[in-house]
Amino acid sequence: VGTAGDHPEFPVQNLPFGIFVPQNDGATPRAGVAIGDFILDLRETAASGLLNTAPLAQAALAAPQLNGLLALPPTDRQALRRAVSRMLSDEGMATVLRPLLHPSATCTMHLPVAIGDYTDFYAGIHHATAVGKLFRPDAPLLPNYKHVPIGYHGRASSVRVSGGSVRRPHGQIKVLGADEPVFQPTERLDYELELGIWVGEGSSAGSPIPIGVAERHIAGFCLLNDWSARDIQAWEYQPLGPFLAKSFHTTISPWIVTAEALAPFRLPQPARPAADPTPLGYLRDDADQARGALDIRLTIALRTARMREAGLPAFTLCKGTTQDLYWTPAQLLTHHASNGCDMRPGDLFGTGTISGPDDTAPGSLLEATQSGRQPLHLPNGESRTFLEDGDQVLFSATAVREGYASIGFGPCSGEITP
Amino acid sequence: VGTAGDHPEFPVQNLPFGIFVPQNDGATPRAGVAIGDFILDLRETAASGLLNTAPLAQAALAAPQLNGLLALPPTDRQALRRAVSRMLSDEGMATVLRPLLHPSATCTMHLPVAIGDYTDFYAGIHHATAVGKLFRPDAPLLPNYKHVPIGYHGRASSVRVSGGSVRRPHGQIKVLGADEPVFQPTERLDYELELGIWVGEGSSAGSPIPIGVAERHIAGFCLLNDWSARDIQAWEYQPLGPFLAKSFHTTISPWIVTAEALAPFRLPQPARPAADPTPLGYLRDDADQARGALDIRLTIALRTARMREAGLPAFTLCKGTTQDLYWTPAQLLTHHASNGCDMRPGDLFGTGTISGPDDTAPGSLLEATQSGRQPLHLPNGESRTFLEDGDQVLFSATAVREGYASIGFGPCSGEITP
Repeated sequence: VGTAGDHPEFPVQNLPFGIFVPQNDGATPRAGVAIGDFILDLRETAASGLLNTAPLAQAALAAPQLNGLLALPPTDRQALRRAVSRMLSDEGMATVLRPLLHPSATCTMHLPVAIGDYTDFYAGIHHATAVGKLFRPDAPLLPNYKHVPIGYHGRASSVRVSGGSVRRPHGQIKVLGADEPVFQPTERLDYELELGIWVGEGSSAGSPIPIGVAERHIAGFCLLNDWSARDIQAWEYQPLGPFLAKSFHTTISPWIVTAEALAPFRLPQPARPAADPTPLGYLRDDADQARGALDIRLTIALRTARMREAGLPAFTLCKGTTQDLYWTPAQLLTHHASNGCDMRPGDLFGTGTISGPDDTAPGSLLEATQSGRQPLHLPNGESRTFLEDGDQVLFSATAVREGYASIGFGPCSGEITP
Repeated sequence: VGTAGDHPEFPVQNLPFGIFVPQNDGATPRAGVAIGDFILDLRETAASGLLNTAPLAQAALAAPQLNGLLALPPTDRQALRRAVSRMLSDEGMATVLRPLLHPSATCTMHLPVAIGDYTDFYAGIHHATAVGKLFRPDAPLLPNYKHVPIGYHGRASSVRVSGGSVRRPHGQIKVLGADEPVFQPTERLDYELELGIWVGEGSSAGSPIPIGVAERHIAGFCLLNDWSARDIQAWEYQPLGPFLAKSFHTTISPWIVTAEALAPFRLPQPARPAADPTPLGYLRDDADQARGALDIRLTIALRTARMREAGLPAFTLCKGTTQDLYWTPAQLLTHHASNGCDMRPGDLFGTGTISGPDDTAPGSLLEATQSGRQPLHLPNGESRTFLEDGDQVLFSATAVREGYASIGFGPCSGEITP
């Protein structure tokens, strides 16, 4: 194992945290870190006293969820990261570590934390523009969009880890031209490509988080698929926003890719067009703008039941980038806490769907098919307007930069079932 | 203490469950039941083996939160209720119980459960109509209103128990006619009178809850104040609904008033006007309609700083009733789970603001003052459009029926601070 030098996702420079269960009889969920094609059992590593250079983190690793680890100041998480990195890079430790390493393929991943609250933002400006265009061709973005990071509260209970099936939800649907709604399975099931943001250290009720210190409250990132039932959404969302069209299932990738691991993969927030308003003072911070944007490559692939039967690989539908977010993670967090709303370690944000400009990289089928009007043609002769039963949707993410080892996020996938 | 025969809120017929801390040095949060002006320490009662006719509930009472109790089938909760009732009615138990009873006035109440998810509905049809009228005088209710129970996901972290202060939130506000928004304290701070619904037994992901069995998943009720910042809401809510205008604070009354205690205070759901649509099949159940509606009297009172200084009592602003809800609790729950969204014990619903017809009992200042256009005149000469610092808002609720002991909910109050 060692440093897993050339692993495409999990070299020693990544070291994402998660909760897993090894295949062993009767094993219980525990903390782990991905290294190459293995998972290092952090609970047992900590129990063996091997992480005592990071004492607070070592104590937090006894829990079956990572909320305690996320609650620690970043320095404690960094100490753990250094200790694990040192251990894995030390050939003398190989014998000690061998029994603590499990092949990833034999392990089951769980949610990394008990999610307190899940919030979904709308920071992908090209997505907001493309969706707005479907309804208001002349004024796709609402007047508030460039001033206020738009978001809504999501459902925490239905956030689930990657893999397994996504059951097509029933709901009230009013077909165009019909007099009355009907209750039936959605016919417009969609995915939404998002980045997930894990809140680390929390905040107290009534205490905003100034933009200058917001980064220390962000522990890490994941991929997020905000599955959406467009026909349910169209009928229910006025006047209070999306509800059951979203809360049937939200999929996340299992690993918390830390802010530390992603530090090399940041770029200045892209300059706003001159005509755009300057953010209000509470959202403005030069340092945040200078290192604010993440530079992560995102991919959406689709594998239908027929592709699987024919042994065909998944077909790439979209290649996006987190550079297309209008607000930085720090701005989202600071805005969220600006009314005094308390944040808790393990709260999850979705960034909102990330699409490229001018339909170049649609983060949802709603955009890719112009709301179902232009079917998407797949190389095996099939076509799609929205998802069909048996379709597998696979998101992946990689951070790449000259001179640095690339790191990945692990899978964020689901298969549609009736 | 005994049965607290004529207590206006907590006679032996009520027996609501909560989490409290007695005044004793070093005491920790524990389960309790309100009886008259006392709280019976249920944790210690259970630890003494006095509740072994309700073994599962007895075990659940060791926890510092009531999620475990709510997770039990209703029969176990009912067994606990009977055991407590028997004990309190048994004069021979007086000596044993005396050390387990604490004067309520000396205790501190906590949230009764760890709230997994909080959902806010919009089932008060007169409120929806009155608010709609402010924007669309000719068509106040949107076309979906009478078909689909409208709701949105709320923020669980900022739900807090009655008492204490409600800090006036900052937020982005765009004053009418201004070119740009500003970030400042809300100038349109409001209350919303709602009933809270506590989910008992949960459901698994992908498994809807049929309307015929929905009642068994509802453990009890509380009062809920969905504090709202109208100016923040007006600017942020398009297109994804209310967000920071709500998530700064939600107040609930501390006691879970059980479905069993409220059973005598139910009436058939009021007949819908003939022109209204029949609910879709998944929301329709004759038994639910026959016993569906709660008959609870609700009161909103206001006490300003000047009233307190002058020794004046709170002034009653509104007397409402839960009869004004368009959907039954069972319909709200069944709808929420109809897409497969999993419910967890201790999930909380707000019903939506409960107002009377035709402005007779406005459940918010937005309605009472016609969005601030018609100030409310108080008997001491003050007036209000929205809440000012120092204002105390007090909700109360009583269930009254000929031949039954009346029961109450306890306070749901908060004082506005800068």
